[in-house]
Amino acid sequence: MKKPLVYTERWAKDTSFSIDIKTHIHHEKSPFQTIDFYDSETFGRFFTLDGLMMVNEKDEFIYHDMISHVPMAVNPDIKRVLIIGGGDGGTAREIARYSHIESIDMVEIDERVVRLSEQFLPQTASTLSNDSRIHLHFKDGVEFVQNTPENTYDLILVDSTDPIGPGEGLFTEAFYKNCYKSLNAKGILINQHESPYFERDKIQMVRAHQRIKSTFPIAKVYQFNMPTYPSGHWLFGFASKHYDPINHHQKDVWESFGLYTKYYNSNLHEAAFQLPTYVLEALNHDA
Amino acid sequence: MKKPLVYTERWAKDTSFSIDIKTHIHHEKSPFQTIDFYDSETFGRFFTLDGLMMVNEKDEFIYHDMISHVPMAVNPDIKRVLIIGGGDGGTAREIARYSHIESIDMVEIDERVVRLSEQFLPQTASTLSNDSRIHLHFKDGVEFVQNTPENTYDLILVDSTDPIGPGEGLFTEAFYKNCYKSLNAKGILINQHESPYFERDKIQMVRAHQRIKSTFPIAKVYQFNMPTYPSGHWLFGFASKHYDPINHHQKDVWESFGLYTKYYNSNLHEAAFQLPTYVLEALNHDA
Repeated sequence: MKKPLVYTERWAKDTSFSIDIKTHIHHEKSPFQTIDFYDSETFGRFFTLDGLMMVNEKDEFIYHDMISHVPMAVNPDIKRVLIIGGGDGGTAREIARYSHIESIDMVEIDERVVRLSEQFLPQTASTLSNDSRIHLHFKDGVEFVQNTPENTYDLILVDSTDPIGPGEGLFTEAFYKNCYKSLNAKGILINQHESPYFERDKIQMVRAHQRIKSTFPIAKVYQFNMPTYPSGHWLFGFASKHYDPINHHQKDVWESFGLYTKYYNSNLHEAAFQLPTYVLEALNHDA
Repeated sequence: MKKPLVYTERWAKDTSFSIDIKTHIHHEKSPFQTIDFYDSETFGRFFTLDGLMMVNEKDEFIYHDMISHVPMAVNPDIKRVLIIGGGDGGTAREIARYSHIESIDMVEIDERVVRLSEQFLPQTASTLSNDSRIHLHFKDGVEFVQNTPENTYDLILVDSTDPIGPGEGLFTEAFYKNCYKSLNAKGILINQHESPYFERDKIQMVRAHQRIKSTFPIAKVYQFNMPTYPSGHWLFGFASKHYDPINHHQKDVWESFGLYTKYYNSNLHEAAFQLPTYVLEALNHDA
């Protein structure tokens, strides 16, 4: 009898989340990380980097809705977008739904994540090769923003892994300063902001917020329910040179685009910025 | 070498959540259910009923804040409260923080849950024997509301297990109708409303909402992040004969009470009612 395959991720040193696997589709060590693709019943196909859940067919819409549509509803005139990371293609897919977007530079350090996602996860990756506005750059995001001229982008989306391994540089103050420089006067930065619940994630959350707050005049944090990430309670950062995500929320303009979104909606937009007391306390505590 | 103890809960048939256990403190079969108390590092002490996580020291504040303070901030004149279930004492503890509350009837079918919580989980249970306004009734909640005279309570809190085993009757239309009858003209009902993410929980969520909507003129649903419940995305129902939880939100009065709450706050109050599109669609779909 074949032993059943189980994917297990440690959410804390004594806490884990497990999924029974139907098929282990692919395993590979790229120059940057270990990449695995699996099939499961509840979550459909999913992939992990260095053993951590990145994207699955069941709830990727939550993460990709919240990283993309929040800034687009604050500045609906965004035309030039930089995505750092996001090799699965889901973030580019959502941004590409806006017909007025002119260009999407996607900087992914690991080409293998893109190629394998194109092969195994068309739900997120199929747009990458089908939209001529998307330009793929297989480069280090840290160096990319260092070399980006001033005032280049309206929006930067940091769709990164955790700050260990290849994602580490995307959580540094130097990186945030280069994002600031690369954005124009009305530019917005959205970043993967970890989670308030488990201690390891909370430390990263607090650190990221301190660094972004010291770089951007406006630095807010918003939350969403991502069941396959540790604790299910996950955050994005919204930083900007000009826009406040609530005061400048352009609900009517965004709704005029007529996009159906399975998680995001206009009421949720403002609500997502209202955080529990314990999260506010952690964010406002000087690290 | 002693085998390490691991507590594992199935969140879906192919998905599980596990906690390494330091000590299995207590195991007992009561006339109603199997009760276990454990010690763990990350979550502190916790207990399970029929193998499902009920309460732990790390995140019980989230659940108890959200079940208690939302209705108290909509009608700050609430004086007579009925709690059904809630044997751990956490809900009664939060309600008892309001000095103007006159009486709290707590109806718990299983006296052993209360006694064991008093013994092993004082964080939630210590108020039960220290506040003369709390009256314990070890009875079936379904029968209790059946026999309650009309217009008895300002607030009913259904702090129940899932609708399997002893909690089953607390999800029926007959039960909700008896709650309606037991509430006065401005009465509010809050109930444990399951979750939108995993299929089994979603079916119960939809069913509960249909039944409450057919009983109460106002029936809303609000969400919170409860990492130790399946998917971490959990809901309460807010039903009322009179009050809308947002239009009648009495922020200033509630804040004048000066209660510190680690999860709940006035901004989160209104935000919690703004649900993701896929949750709204499931709730509004006629079951």
